[in-house]
Amino acid sequence: MSISVSLTDSRARVGVWLIGARGSVATTVVAGCAAVTAGLQAPVGMVTETAPFAGSGLPALSSLVFGGHDTLDCPLPKRAEALAAGGVLPHGLPEAIAADLAAADAEIKPGGPLPGDTRRPDELIDAFAADIRDFVRRHGLARAVVVNVASTEPVAAGPDLPSSSLYAAAALRAGCPYVNFTPSTGLHHPALADAAVTSGLPYAGRDGKTGQTLLRSVLGPMFAQRALAVRAWSGTNLLGGGDGAALADPAAAAAKNAGKERVLTDTLGTTPEGRTHIDDVPALGDWKTAWDHITFDGFLGTRMTLQTTWQGCDSALAAPLVLDLARLTARAHEAGLTGPLTELGFYFKDPVGDAPSALGAQYEVLTGFAERLRTHAADHGGDAEGAR
Amino acid sequence: MSISVSLTDSRARVGVWLIGARGSVATTVVAGCAAVTAGLQAPVGMVTETAPFAGSGLPALSSLVFGGHDTLDCPLPKRAEALAAGGVLPHGLPEAIAADLAAADAEIKPGGPLPGDTRRPDELIDAFAADIRDFVRRHGLARAVVVNVASTEPVAAGPDLPSSSLYAAAALRAGCPYVNFTPSTGLHHPALADAAVTSGLPYAGRDGKTGQTLLRSVLGPMFAQRALAVRAWSGTNLLGGGDGAALADPAAAAAKNAGKERVLTDTLGTTPEGRTHIDDVPALGDWKTAWDHITFDGFLGTRMTLQTTWQGCDSALAAPLVLDLARLTARAHEAGLTGPLTELGFYFKDPVGDAPSALGAQYEVLTGFAERLRTHAADHGGDAEGAR
Amino acid sequence: MSISVSLTDSRARVGVWLIGARGSVATTVVAGCAAVTAGLQAPVGMVTETAPFAGSGLPALSSLVFGGHDTLDCPLPKRAEALAAGGVLPHGLPEAIAADLAAADAEIKPGGPLPGDTRRPDELIDAFAADIRDFVRRHGLARAVVVNVASTEPVAAGPDLPSSSLYAAAALRAGCPYVNFTPSTGLHHPALADAAVTSGLPYAGRDGKTGQTLLRSVLGPMFAQRALAVRAWSGTNLLGGGDGAALADPAAAAAKNAGKERVLTDTLGTTPEGRTHIDDVPALGDWKTAWDHITFDGFLGTRMTLQTTWQGCDSALAAPLVLDLARLTARAHEAGLTGPLTELGFYFKDPVGDAPSALGAQYEVLTGFAERLRTHAADHGGDAEGAR
Amino acid sequence: MSISVSLTDSRARVGVWLIGARGSVATTVVAGCAAVTAGLQAPVGMVTETAPFAGSGLPALSSLVFGGHDTLDCPLPKRAEALAAGGVLPHGLPEAIAADLAAADAEIKPGGPLPGDTRRPDELIDAFAADIRDFVRRHGLARAVVVNVASTEPVAAGPDLPSSSLYAAAALRAGCPYVNFTPSTGLHHPALADAAVTSGLPYAGRDGKTGQTLLRSVLGPMFAQRALAVRAWSGTNLLGGGDGAALADPAAAAAKNAGKERVLTDTLGTTPEGRTHIDDVPALGDWKTAWDHITFDGFLGTRMTLQTTWQGCDSALAAPLVLDLARLTARAHEAGLTGPLTELGFYFKDPVGDAPSALGAQYEVLTGFAERLRTHAADHGGDAEGAR
Repeated sequence: MSISVSLTDSRARVGVWLIGARGSVATTVVAGCAAVTAGLQAPVGMVTETAPFAGSGLPALSSLVFGGHDTLDCPLPKRAEALAAGGVLPHGLPEAIAADLAAADAEIKPGGPLPGDTRRPDELIDAFAADIRDFVRRHGLARAVVVNVASTEPVAAGPDLPSSSLYAAAALRAGCPYVNFTPSTGLHHPALADAAVTSGLPYAGRDGKTGQTLLRSVLGPMFAQRALAVRAWSGTNLLGGGDGAALADPAAAAAKNAGKERVLTDTLGTTPEGRTHIDDVPALGDWKTAWDHITFDGFLGTRMTLQTTWQGCDSALAAPLVLDLARLTARAHEAGLTGPLTELGFYFKDPVGDAPSALGAQYEVLTGFAERLRTHAADHGGDAEGAR
Repeated sequence: MSISVSLTDSRARVGVWLIGARGSVATTVVAGCAAVTAGLQAPVGMVTETAPFAGSGLPALSSLVFGGHDTLDCPLPKRAEALAAGGVLPHGLPEAIAADLAAADAEIKPGGPLPGDTRRPDELIDAFAADIRDFVRRHGLARAVVVNVASTEPVAAGPDLPSSSLYAAAALRAGCPYVNFTPSTGLHHPALADAAVTSGLPYAGRDGKTGQTLLRSVLGPMFAQRALAVRAWSGTNLLGGGDGAALADPAAAAAKNAGKERVLTDTLGTTPEGRTHIDDVPALGDWKTAWDHITFDGFLGTRMTLQTTWQGCDSALAAPLVLDLARLTARAHEAGLTGPLTELGFYFKDPVGDAPSALGAQYEVLTGFAERLRTHAADHGGDAEGAR
Repeated sequence: MSISVSLTDSRARVGVWLIGARGSVATTVVAGCAAVTAGLQAPVGMVTETAPFAGSGLPALSSLVFGGHDTLDCPLPKRAEALAAGGVLPHGLPEAIAADLAAADAEIKPGGPLPGDTRRPDELIDAFAADIRDFVRRHGLARAVVVNVASTEPVAAGPDLPSSSLYAAAALRAGCPYVNFTPSTGLHHPALADAAVTSGLPYAGRDGKTGQTLLRSVLGPMFAQRALAVRAWSGTNLLGGGDGAALADPAAAAAKNAGKERVLTDTLGTTPEGRTHIDDVPALGDWKTAWDHITFDGFLGTRMTLQTTWQGCDSALAAPLVLDLARLTARAHEAGLTGPLTELGFYFKDPVGDAPSALGAQYEVLTGFAERLRTHAADHGGDAEGAR
Repeated sequence: MSISVSLTDSRARVGVWLIGARGSVATTVVAGCAAVTAGLQAPVGMVTETAPFAGSGLPALSSLVFGGHDTLDCPLPKRAEALAAGGVLPHGLPEAIAADLAAADAEIKPGGPLPGDTRRPDELIDAFAADIRDFVRRHGLARAVVVNVASTEPVAAGPDLPSSSLYAAAALRAGCPYVNFTPSTGLHHPALADAAVTSGLPYAGRDGKTGQTLLRSVLGPMFAQRALAVRAWSGTNLLGGGDGAALADPAAAAAKNAGKERVLTDTLGTTPEGRTHIDDVPALGDWKTAWDHITFDGFLGTRMTLQTTWQGCDSALAAPLVLDLARLTARAHEAGLTGPLTELGFYFKDPVGDAPSALGAQYEVLTGFAERLRTHAADHGGDAEGAR
């Protein structure tokens, strides 16, 4: 398939429409993009700012325009203040980038459905899609990417579309690429399968790997490559914030854990004993501690163990990846790519399509993708297939 | 360069000549090879027994014949009993493979120089080389590989050849490939540089990575690929056994630590703050605990930490790698390869030649090497360059 | 109350009747007592063998005679072999003390009720009591102590006596002091309250503290004494063996966790956030790993953390305490003490009666008790109240 | 000895003269006292604010007046800003208590000797004592306590008085009680022994236990009371800030470590294998991580381990103890007590005089002391001996 695309123009403005736009991750995305653009902070944690991505034609950080849906009311500047008080954002940053926060805040529309909302699913999708189209039009954006960073939904039961799928359908209806950074259903609903194909839009997901699973995606391959027999892999996650409360719901935790355990099975080639717990510990605020205990056999059956303790701030780990994904997906859209972006498996616990599960191999696929985008960018409107 | 080699014959007997042949690692190598050959144990931890190495023409485990040098007297069967009491070897194993232990024990010759030995270095090299040649001749071996698994030497000062280099020179003189599994000088001595080249022998090293450094070689790339800024990487190793005592010598520890820190610098692209300690804790026997504490910055400078605790048995981690290396190096010799085997960097802290430092990339190089050896084996005496 | 007791005679033989007599703990109790008596092992972990207990008139280890109930068939010598293979007992010990294992094995009677058993509770109690009386009579024992070391029962629902309570009632009916080393109901059943009082027998419990809770009983007071505000205390226990499987039942785990959390509430004076998990990890065998993560506030609200990882063998931790308790309770019975032995709170997660919850304070109470027993022993039959 | 003291008056103003008055600990002491006095923060971590100390006649926090010596210039308000940026002080606190910081800053006099200072030791002592007397006089203080919170000195060699001893001598010369919160020599110099006795002043020390040693003082007794045989106790401390740099000097670290290991020897009754490292890791700023690895034998020699990781902020741990000590020592002085205050061993790694080494026992001694001070306070000028 050969398509014609406009000249790569990193100055063209690109929209990032966040589902869950008033949450910790979204607030950190908006604040962080502004801080880096203003030169107040280095782009630590942004893979797309490293050498292999130079010249790949990604939209500049300064070209990103933020908006989104949320069911909450709390203004972004206030949310940012709370994050700064909790040590997630640097002190003084919310004041320094107050205008950027206010601008994004003005573009957040009410999400749904809230209790009492009698609109049918299709009406909701229409309303959400209209919000997005309006955002694109008013800002004269070249395109917008919809990214789901809302709290994890319980595993869906039944044929009804969960909220995350309503938003995903709205993205397609508005002609926007879609990225699911959470384990929620999103575009993975049978009712959306056809629309995903016929839309001709690129999409990526599911469930960003930011901490414990990131670690597992390098430790699993290490054991496998060394032919060490992992017998048990147990884990406990302690987290506060909204995420802790959402995941205290066993159904929501089940969605999250499925991804965590899939990485083990995929990289080890077997499913070890052991469970993974997610505990709500409000005292931890936006911080998270993940302990993993791995029992393995060495030569002659000698039993050994590895323990890891990861202490991180989920929003600070997730936000740069969200910016990466928004840029890469926008660029893929510009380059005429369609369907699942399997090249972005590096970012996800449960990547779409067939892709390697070891982080190192995923990184090679990702940088190879950057290389192809670079070639494509150099060709100014060449064959989109060339970007694959 | 095109050379002619004989038919790959995995039944030809191959010698494994161990420097430090009465140590824990050597004893575990001999006992483990016998146990796996006899079907008493699965080859857990032996990378060369996994699928990518099938058909690469490696010598069969049952074809390996063991001998070596040591300055100690303790008979191997007694050493094996002590290891079984300490949980390193399965109980009952020393009895089950008593004949194999006795056979190897009979092939261990006195090492040196011991205090009072007045032989000049060249005389010692001659004596050691004669021991090795005699071993090869008496057993009718196709070839023998010399592997250094002796205790770590202090960093050499001055022009004198340290013991490890005397043994390395003897390997060359006896026409044998050489593998340095320790951080000792071995073939890395300026006085041996010419001989290494002119010998036309393959060699590999240095310093097997079995625990903490293995971990570092997957965690370092993870941080780098995610563009997370590692600020400090501190480590403490607690180990008993002979290794603990040897490394309590700061000069010996310095040799070991150089390799551990090199992996960080190579994979991170920068040298973080922090030190690495090696403590002698006799109560730990053959077991080792390594704690690493990593401080890194995420997005917007948010400070996070990762801690790892590795509890392993060094002998059980090292022994299968020694068997891997002996087989791969013997096969490389058979295939006519010469000089530094950079393809074996997967096994070492401080690999010879230019090679990637991330474990995943090293694994790809290694399996690529296995693939080329397979092609070569299938060609029955084809171009040795093809095996590279 | 003044009572007359016979002369303290540490040579008089004393029975130890174990409920769960074929389990890991019971096997370790029998094997360990024999090993120490034979001089094969030092009495590490036995508090009653330390200086403060000298002269307190405790029965000698060599005077203890073992028997018990179990619903399983596996002979003790075979059980001991399995424990030796798992590293819980020293290799060679089962052979060295074969006669002691066989003697105890011969005194283990079938427990119950097993499925299909149609006897009413009272009949079962009678049968169990008859077994115990018969044991005492045949061996000419001065007395016997019944100790529950069976697997944890699910929390009882309804008025029916659970198995642990049937055995406790049998102990009373047989005139024997009773110790509950588990969190099961035992004597804590309302239907047994009157019998416990009128029996005039001493009793102790409940739920030996051997690892994580032992730690909590010193760390909780540390935080309280330093006026540090503990915000959250989360824990994960990984254990294999029969205990792991039994506690995988949420109802059984609930019984266990209640005790673990009680120690925190009692020592901190408040109940922190956080949960405690118990996971069945069969690969760990008889070994257990417990991770605790404690979040606390220091001066000016500065948030800090303590993490602990305890890796122990439950049977080896429990067995010496069981021997301690059997000796102390037998001695209390000899001294004419009745009712709850609050002085033994040092050993339990959920001690009977009012007693301090900090380990240090419990230790002082315990050694004070030893002192009073010593005085009492010196008085040859003095006032039993004096032993309190 | 019976002495007459004036009425306890908690409104009388009391001086706290800090050696190292511009350091992190001193700044946190001044800021924290102001914050608690103003009701901005709860007195978390202050033992003297808990129930057992009510009515003991301690000076009110609002009555404390701060001053001190330092060789540095950095103004306290600026120092406080830096601590707030590092998360040690709450954001906004330095502004809220600006007046208190400025007041203390104005009372900090130049310490010494600095390079080039030609004054003899006696002249320096005189100058320091004059500074203190002047402070007391100008503020009309009932008394002042001198507390050493300066960086740890290298272990003194030779007969010369180190700086810490010059300040201690100055305290005596000015008639002030002295508390050494560091492992530096202070009053422990032979040349000061007579003066300490004849001064008739109370004093306390040495080396506040705030983290790793605090833990050791509860874990050591736990192992001892349970008759578990500790074989090895290894530790690594990672710390940044000024303390990290000071303790990177092996001579300074030696002083610190002596105290840490003494606690083990005292509580275990034996000195286990293992070393304790102190590493300077500037990236950690004012935060400290201490890892301990304990290897112990249980019943029948079964080997087990406990690991602890303590992540704390030293200044926030130390400051409330410094306030406690200043109050208790001032009160002891008021009550006419003289010589070493052995009752304060709860606070120190290396307490003066004979005292228990287990934290629980030290706590009982401390609260007993509070009780005696209360009785004394109630007696309005009774026998000072009664306060002991």
